[in-house]
Order: sequence, then C-alpha cells, then structure tokens
Amino acid sequence: MSDFTATCPIPFADYPSVLMAHGGGGRLTGQLIEKLFLPAFANPFLSQQHDGALLEINGQRVAFSTDSYVVQPLFFPGGDIGALAVNGTVNDLAMCGARPLYLSAGFIIEEGLSMETLWRIVQSMSRAAEAAGVQLVTGDTKVVDKGKGDGVFVNTAGIGIVDHRLTIAPASVLPGDAVLVSGDLGRHGMAIMSVREGLQFETTIESDCAPLAAPVQALLDADIRVRCLRDLTRGGLSSALNEIADASHTRIEIDERAVPVREEVRGACEILGFDPLYVANEGRLVAFVAPDDAERALAILRAHAPGGEAAAIGFVQPGGGSRHGRVTLKSRIGVIRILDMLTGEQLPRIC
Amino acid sequence: MSDFTATCPIPFADYPSVLMAHGGGGRLTGQLIEKLFLPAFANPFLSQQHDGALLEINGQRVAFSTDSYVVQPLFFPGGDIGALAVNGTVNDLAMCGARPLYLSAGFIIEEGLSMETLWRIVQSMSRAAEAAGVQLVTGDTKVVDKGKGDGVFVNTAGIGIVDHRLTIAPASVLPGDAVLVSGDLGRHGMAIMSVREGLQFETTIESDCAPLAAPVQALLDADIRVRCLRDLTRGGLSSALNEIADASHTRIEIDERAVPVREEVRGACEILGFDPLYVANEGRLVAFVAPDDAERALAILRAHAPGGEAAAIGFVQPGGGSRHGRVTLKSRIGVIRILDMLTGEQLPRIC
Repeated sequence: MSDFTATCPIPFADYPSVLMAHGGGGRLTGQLIEKLFLPAFANPFLSQQHDGALLEINGQRVAFSTDSYVVQPLFFPGGDIGALAVNGTVNDLAMCGARPLYLSAGFIIEEGLSMETLWRIVQSMSRAAEAAGVQLVTGDTKVVDKGKGDGVFVNTAGIGIVDHRLTIAPASVLPGDAVLVSGDLGRHGMAIMSVREGLQFETTIESDCAPLAAPVQALLDADIRVRCLRDLTRGGLSSALNEIADASHTRIEIDERAVPVREEVRGACEILGFDPLYVANEGRLVAFVAPDDAERALAILRAHAPGGEAAAIGFVQPGGGSRHGRVTLKSRIGVIRILDMLTGEQLPRIC
Repeated sequence: MSDFTATCPIPFADYPSVLMAHGGGGRLTGQLIEKLFLPAFANPFLSQQHDGALLEINGQRVAFSTDSYVVQPLFFPGGDIGALAVNGTVNDLAMCGARPLYLSAGFIIEEGLSMETLWRIVQSMSRAAEAAGVQLVTGDTKVVDKGKGDGVFVNTAGIGIVDHRLTIAPASVLPGDAVLVSGDLGRHGMAIMSVREGLQFETTIESDCAPLAAPVQALLDADIRVRCLRDLTRGGLSSALNEIADASHTRIEIDERAVPVREEVRGACEILGFDPLYVANEGRLVAFVAPDDAERALAILRAHAPGGEAAAIGFVQPGGGSRHGRVTLKSRIGVIRILDMLTGEQLPRIC
C-alpha cells in the first residue's frame, strides 16, 4: 500500500482518478472538499464552508473568494465566460454579505485562440465589472499548447468589505426562518444545454447571468435579519439547500408550486431529462431570513433582484438526527419527497 | 472591417491568434497587457504595472495579486506545481513590500488525473503555505473533459498587508540606486528544461522555487530604503530590468561577472541554447536600494534569502530618450551590449 492509499481519506478503490462529477457541484465535489482539501488546508476560515472566506484586516471584516470558469461554449444566449467570471465572484462575495470591491483575473489561453475572441471576452468583463461596481485591479495570462486547453479558462478572485454586524452563514439558519429565492430558476443551465444540444424553442432561453450585489445590499440597508445567502450555481437549489440544512442541523421544507420556473425552461428540462431544482443559475440566490422580516425581504428582492420574480418557497424546521432527508419538497400534487444532493454528473462545464 | 479589427489595439494582421509567446513573459506578453488588458480595465491600480495591486482598506494598505500555474511536468527536481502556486503568489505579494497572509486556490483538473497526483499536489501546497506563513482560506475546483486540459492547472490569488511607509514600485527607482540579486539565477527554468529534454548532469539541477517573504521583511525591518523589488520569473532578470528601466525612465548597467550563475546551469544553458539572464527563477528577486544602504542590504539578503548567494550586480543611471537600449551589460570580456526584453517564446509552460 503506497503512502497515498494509506493516508488519503478519499476511498481510493472507488475513485482512483478524478471524474467529471468531481467538478459538478454535487456529492462528489462535496467529498473532494470535505475529505481532501479541508484536511490538507485545515484552518477556521475554510471550515466555515461558505462561498468565500471572512477575514479581518485592521479591524475591518473582509470577504475573499475565488472561482475558475471553464464554461463551454464560451459565448451563449444571455452571457459569455467573461461576464460569468465577473458576476460569479461578485456573487460569491455578496453571499458572504460583503460589498464587492476588487477583482483579480487569471487567463489560461489555449494557443491559437483568436485575438478577436479574447478581445470580446475582455470587453465583456470590463462591462460586467462596471455594472457590478467592481474594479479589476490585477491579473495574469498564461498560454498552453494547442490541444492542452479549451479556448480559454478564466479565474477571478475577489475582495469585498463587510459593513454590518450580522453573521451571514449556514450555521446562522434557525428553525422558523423563511426561505426565499430571488427569481425564476434553471435558465443558465438550460441556456447552455440548449445551445450544446442544438435545441430550438419559440423563445430562446437566455442565461440569468447577473450580479447580485445590489439586492443583497438592499436587504442589508433595510435591516432585514439575513441568516444565510447562497447563489444557486452548480448543483442548483437542491444542492444549496442540502448543504445549508446539513451545516445548520435543520430540516428545510419547500413547496414546489411556489418555486418559479419559466415554461420554456420546464420544457427544455423535460426534453433533456433534467430537474430544474438541480440546474445551475448564475444570477439567482436563496435567502434565509427571520420569519417576521420575510414579507419585507420578498418585496425588496422583487424590486432589486434581476428577473423580478422573487418568491417565498418554504420554511426551516428543527433538524432530526440523520443526514438523509433533511430537505423535503411538497410536489404539485401534494406528495412529499426527499430532495437529495445532486449525485453524479448532471451538467458538465456549466460555469 | 469588423468591430474588432477597428477597435482592438493589437496589430490584428500580425497576430490574428494567441501564440505561445504571448504567455512567455517577454515582448508579446507586454504587448497583450499594454494594448489589450490595460485599455479594457483602465484604472489606477492596474497602471501601477506592479506584481500586484496596492489597495487601501479601512486605512490599511493591502496588496492583492494572482497567478495561474500551468507548468509541465507537474513534478520536477526541487518542486512541483503546488509549491510553485503557493510561492509564486507569496512572492508577488512580497514584491509589493507586503506581508503575505491569505491565499485562495482554484484547481482546473483534467478528467482522469489520478487522485494520488492531486493529493500529492495538495499536500505540497499545504507544506509550502506553512513554510511561507500564509493560510489557504478559500478555493474552487473545476473538472474539464479528458483532452481539454493538461493534468491540472492551479490558480492562486493572495492578500498581504503593507506595514511601512515606502512606495516600493518601478517608478520609485532613482539614478544611483544599487541593483542586487538575492541568489544565483536560472535554476528553475533549467531544472524544468533538463527534465523535458532528458538531460543528465553529474549534479541534478534543482529548481530555486522558494518563498521570498522573509528576506523582504528583513530588509524592511532594517529600514533599508527599498525602491523596487521584482521576482525574476518568466523572462528572467533581463525582462524584469527592462520593465523597471522603462517604468522609471532610467538606464540600468549590469556587470555580467557579478551575476551569480551556477556552473551546471551555465552548462545546461549552453547545451540548450539559452541565456541564463532570460531564464525564469521562482525564488529569486532583484532589489533596487538607495546607494548608501547597498552594503547592509546585501548582507541581509545573504543571511535571509534562499540560496545565500546574493550579489550586487550593477547601478541605475539617468535615463535617455529612447526606449531601446535602456539596460546594458558589461560582459566577461569587457564588451558592453544591450540587454533587451525577451522576444518570442523562450521557455514555454515554465510556471
């Protein structure tokens, strides 16, 4: 037995190598983080298991986050890898309750990428940064041989400042809290998949890719008691709810009829065999707020969140013992079913 | 003429697509930054043209930097992509005169990478972070299809704090300043190239990959008037000197006999047709210091910098009008030659 099989906590016999699903945002991504990254880099920041780390610099709370973007195709209805790379990290900072300020950008370019494509992506990042109120202040470019990359991969990291006294984190969620989503779900994932599969609908499905810093700031400015925020990217609503229920030792009950999903998204999901509750969004969040603030919070999200279709979709309940079945969904016909973590690979290279 | 050819300031006819040399750290990388990235993201932080951005958060000066790592092979004598990714960003922060504190890590993994390889890289990052005194506080993992990546690419971004009143930047360099290097040059690049080319020497050339935060802190603690620091990565000493001479409107004169290069590195360079002054290092810096502080600074670097072979290699002179010929080298036989920026692709995928 090598050192590795003796020490690595990932079941080596089951997973001798990395699968696409390890990057899908579901159960295997969770296993990779929990069993490989967390033990190696053990520190109190990482174990917050948040969309970013909350640091303190000279008495100022600061959020720090990063994401790499490997979406294919690079351009899609409603966005492109550049806008995604800016909004994705802006949103991760906003989910920490921070006001995003500064981004870095790292480009890994495949030799032969057309200069025009790079220019269009960079221009798109510039526009997205301006719209989100952030500045792109430092960067790096690497080029890899033809056939060793895929056009371009973009990494962004971001810094934001936290100007309130709330602890916005999964562990702050309490029984009784209301669960709100900021808009209709599933558009980003289905926009990408429709292009890849060559599906044509009467209405083109456009990605919901957008910055969420403004609606979060509006909630905070109105003194809403925000417990937790999470943007609904890889793994969709279901994975986010499961992670939060797990971390807060609660149960979450969702009413399927209340979850906004557009007709064309529902149609595309049916054709391609996806469940919209597992599909990635890039401009949608779930907010957990104190019960008394739910109505005001909903009105604020309807006024400030992209899409304008915010909805209250459920409540938090006291947690039980088992990890299994923490999130339940009352379906359209009244059946209650368990909403589990995404297992396996659903939508590869979605962001 | 498309919008692109009309607006993009990169000469489109000459460079319709991205070449390996655009990532090599030489003239074409400079053109990409100056003509494509800077205009798109115009702001005062980027135009510092430093190894990172200097920000101010709640009255505290903070440095922020990022780099992606695409080195091949992933493991090489003296290091691996994990150690490189930690030390590289630690060093970029140190070159801003900052004390590195926090890193993010973004992994782009090619489907099929062995879990053992990933585990070894992550363990190496953990050890490097501990050695450099930084914490890895937030991260992200993406997986791309087999054949669309190359094992693994790692991005790190970092935050450090600046606890002194100096302005350490290319523009602070003054005529008369002494030019010091912190150790022998060319080992990282030649370690990688020797492996790739299958060269065998009596002594294996080991990469100089190491953190430079401690020697920088030692210079600052001793109140050395540090004008500018630069780690000698892609493009090597020559490219760094040219960039700094350009930004400070000075000329720099180097004495080749004073530049420390190990015998085996010189030999490998001769066999492979490289000039050690253009070869990448990953644990070496050039420091510009006030003339009166040069001797003390040299003693501090000899005591604290990895390698222990720090040397004073030249002086800064008043600048002339032309950009060309700003850096000159007095060779071993007394001939003075112009030391130009790296042109074209010298060492691909070195970091």
